[in-house]
Amino acid sequence: MKKIRVTIWNEYVHEQAQTAAGEYIRRFYPRGIHRYLAEHLSASDLEIRSVSLDEPEQGLNDELLQNTDVLLWWGHCAHAEVKDELVDRIQKRVLEGMGLIVLHSGHLSKIFRRMMGTACRLRWREVGEKERLWVVSPSHPIAQGVPETFVIPNHEMYGEPFDIPQDGKIVFMSWFEGGNVFRSGVAFERDRGRIFYFSPGHETFPVYHDEVIQRILGNAIRWAAPLGYVPDRITKQPESLETIRTENPLDKLDTSALHK
Amino acid sequence: MKKIRVTIWNEYVHEQAQTAAGEYIRRFYPRGIHRYLAEHLSASDLEIRSVSLDEPEQGLNDELLQNTDVLLWWGHCAHAEVKDELVDRIQKRVLEGMGLIVLHSGHLSKIFRRMMGTACRLRWREVGEKERLWVVSPSHPIAQGVPETFVIPNHEMYGEPFDIPQDGKIVFMSWFEGGNVFRSGVAFERDRGRIFYFSPGHETFPVYHDEVIQRILGNAIRWAAPLGYVPDRITKQPESLETIRTENPLDKLDTSALHK
Amino acid sequence: MKKIRVTIWNEYVHEQAQTAAGEYIRRFYPRGIHRYLAEHLSASDLEIRSVSLDEPEQGLNDELLQNTDVLLWWGHCAHAEVKDELVDRIQKRVLEGMGLIVLHSGHLSKIFRRMMGTACRLRWREVGEKERLWVVSPSHPIAQGVPETFVIPNHEMYGEPFDIPQDGKIVFMSWFEGGNVFRSGVAFERDRGRIFYFSPGHETFPVYHDEVIQRILGNAIRWAAPLGYVPDRITKQPESLETIRTENPLDKLDTSALHK
Amino acid sequence: MKKIRVTIWNEYVHEQAQTAAGEYIRRFYPRGIHRYLAEHLSASDLEIRSVSLDEPEQGLNDELLQNTDVLLWWGHCAHAEVKDELVDRIQKRVLEGMGLIVLHSGHLSKIFRRMMGTACRLRWREVGEKERLWVVSPSHPIAQGVPETFVIPNHEMYGEPFDIPQDGKIVFMSWFEGGNVFRSGVAFERDRGRIFYFSPGHETFPVYHDEVIQRILGNAIRWAAPLGYVPDRITKQPESLETIRTENPLDKLDTSALHK
Repeated sequence: MKKIRVTIWNEYVHEQAQTAAGEYIRRFYPRGIHRYLAEHLSASDLEIRSVSLDEPEQGLNDELLQNTDVLLWWGHCAHAEVKDELVDRIQKRVLEGMGLIVLHSGHLSKIFRRMMGTACRLRWREVGEKERLWVVSPSHPIAQGVPETFVIPNHEMYGEPFDIPQDGKIVFMSWFEGGNVFRSGVAFERDRGRIFYFSPGHETFPVYHDEVIQRILGNAIRWAAPLGYVPDRITKQPESLETIRTENPLDKLDTSALHK
Repeated sequence: MKKIRVTIWNEYVHEQAQTAAGEYIRRFYPRGIHRYLAEHLSASDLEIRSVSLDEPEQGLNDELLQNTDVLLWWGHCAHAEVKDELVDRIQKRVLEGMGLIVLHSGHLSKIFRRMMGTACRLRWREVGEKERLWVVSPSHPIAQGVPETFVIPNHEMYGEPFDIPQDGKIVFMSWFEGGNVFRSGVAFERDRGRIFYFSPGHETFPVYHDEVIQRILGNAIRWAAPLGYVPDRITKQPESLETIRTENPLDKLDTSALHK
Repeated sequence: MKKIRVTIWNEYVHEQAQTAAGEYIRRFYPRGIHRYLAEHLSASDLEIRSVSLDEPEQGLNDELLQNTDVLLWWGHCAHAEVKDELVDRIQKRVLEGMGLIVLHSGHLSKIFRRMMGTACRLRWREVGEKERLWVVSPSHPIAQGVPETFVIPNHEMYGEPFDIPQDGKIVFMSWFEGGNVFRSGVAFERDRGRIFYFSPGHETFPVYHDEVIQRILGNAIRWAAPLGYVPDRITKQPESLETIRTENPLDKLDTSALHK
Repeated sequence: MKKIRVTIWNEYVHEQAQTAAGEYIRRFYPRGIHRYLAEHLSASDLEIRSVSLDEPEQGLNDELLQNTDVLLWWGHCAHAEVKDELVDRIQKRVLEGMGLIVLHSGHLSKIFRRMMGTACRLRWREVGEKERLWVVSPSHPIAQGVPETFVIPNHEMYGEPFDIPQDGKIVFMSWFEGGNVFRSGVAFERDRGRIFYFSPGHETFPVYHDEVIQRILGNAIRWAAPLGYVPDRITKQPESLETIRTENPLDKLDTSALHK
């Protein structure tokens, strides 16, 4: 069986900060969120690589992108540094069939806003409150093996209204201790590619250490993996399929009547 | 009653071409498609202006854009000339509530692809064949007063597969003499704004002279007009609405167990 | 201007019960929820009638139904008593264009389940906890003039997963003190008719006394009012619109080869 | 690997008619459409049974239904004979996860109208004209291995407007020689179950002899097969998950102010 080729991209800034916050974050992700996920999502049907913004070509050269079936994206403070040219290449690849999983603060990443066409804004608050998630679509592949409700004891709040298109299939919804609600797991299709937005994963909490969260990410990777790629097509259809009977009457048109 | 402020934007290139084709097109639109539409969509509840790419700031300075409720867009051979900065400004305005009506070859315009996030490709053929349109959603406001089926005697063919998101409400579908079908009138919502794509309107046929087509465009303008504008909001919610009871247990966390 | 003809249907059982609960409920709705709503939704553009299950033909004879533009439905313990024949008539009328607003425990009414095709189940708990609603679609007509978030101090909990089709436009989402979330205001279109499900309104709390709730119901009525009715059509199209060129080759078919 | 248990239900009336039409149909389906399909969809991962209306319990006793993963439904002139009690049982099973594939004139079957909630009407004409199908969603599992366009040389016309809910994912659209268009392959989800409507298959043409059509039906069966069944759940949630802090202030409520 062919393995799913997964690439985990991380801006990898918070985890390297020489600050108290950075030190705090390194307690959970000493080598970066990308490497932590690569290790903990490891499975026999997956071939996982992890890359980061500080690598050549911002971590995603064309060869790697062409050989990626599902791309995970974690970004927050460095969205603006990602080059438009890279966003163009990722978008093209998604539209051809590559899966894209956008994590947490990636809701404002260039690539997510590009795929959605909307502002992707939301309400937020960072006081470490309790988040409770609910499975809204129990039969969705991403929800398999996930309990109907489960808790992240401390997390950043992301709340409605969330500016995304209406055709997202809601897989998870969240309740926050401070009084907010949120569509926290939403699945989209865009041309040949599948996109999953999943809000858990603030860097100052060990969210990705949670086995339920890891299960969801594993499910999402397998759901987003393409059936196959559809290369760029030539859109002109040179001949008609059915006989066209009319001559163009406009060729003999007396247009004087059109402009009285 | 407050009038709807309509701006009709046209790249206005074909109609000015000093070629046989240009001469042909000028039979139908001697002063440009934008001016023709401005004149023929005229109504007491509309305040219509028409602009074109060759004007200062590509026809859409900020003041005009801020005072536009519904923007119509006709473009074809000059899509690439439209500045990204203008596309940014239009997108922001649509997301705040401005209506956007994208006509014919505008399916590949920067602004339509930006709003959709998809490739917006389609099959096409230009032999002047017959197009027959069908009302698929008879109760949609854009279809009011439109016969269940009607014909454009000669038109360019636009056919499926059409790469657009799934949440477009299909108002019209088209049949083509040469054997193709197409979702020719599709209504979207993105954040606070409404978008209508309508495929009729190839420049070498007098499509906009048709009263049914004019009726549809008038309906679309009134449907897309905003209820009101929602300015850019500050998304941070500084305080919780409900009391948050927990202290952050992570503050006293012994993380040694996390990394065995 | 033609008024919108509104009919408010109520099973009217709880309010008449000769029990402590009934007495309690009558503090808020002494003459029934239907009459209370008829009085408090009163407006110059609405012509409102209220009816109940205990009236002849269960309150909805054919003439009344034919002269109703928007039907509000409150039911709970007497769903099973509503005759299937009445449900058939209401469904037919909705599909032709009548608006339908289903309130609270009407999620399990025959007519709502008929229109949805799904089980319409949800999680619930009745301890009088706080419900906080959020506007998820600020530009939807039903949300106009409604604050981004507001509270029902004490209410029955309705929670996810809620078994409804995916094409409901989510206008409101709810947060519950006890840890649940819910799609509490959802707008559907079915053929020519519009349907709005709105969960607030448990009989033992004075929810319909709240001015924000009344505003939402008024908005919903105006949103659901039909543009016009589409009578039952004859679906056969006796002649083709375009010339059909082929003879049926099957008439001369040698079928011996089909069944080797 | 567990096989998918497929049941093909056919009203089996036309094929048994002692008329010229019946004789004609028997050239293509001598033992009935259900048996023809059972034979030609045969594959190592499928366990296929075929049943018909004239069998005990209308062909679908409870044990068979409980042991069916995907149900195919072909009906036309005997829709009214199918008992409501059977429709109830099928609906319940679909909502729990069973796949349902509705063929051709099954658009007006009780079970399809029950699942949709709409009138499911369409335009039609029976003159044996050419139908051309187009793949609209090339990445959908049901479209795998299917050419972008293909032809049924002679078929009954089914045309728009087609009264179905908006959340159907359009996999195929059809062009008809006589000038009509149609959403001929549409995929729905209802609670835990998947539903595919596919219009080809009029009994007087050998449509199911076509290998492309057989491929589509095989794809649809595998797409509709459930991940697992979700039995009827108890919807009451007896305790809150989070602590509820308030007492019900209504208990001490002075309601005199409510009814001035």
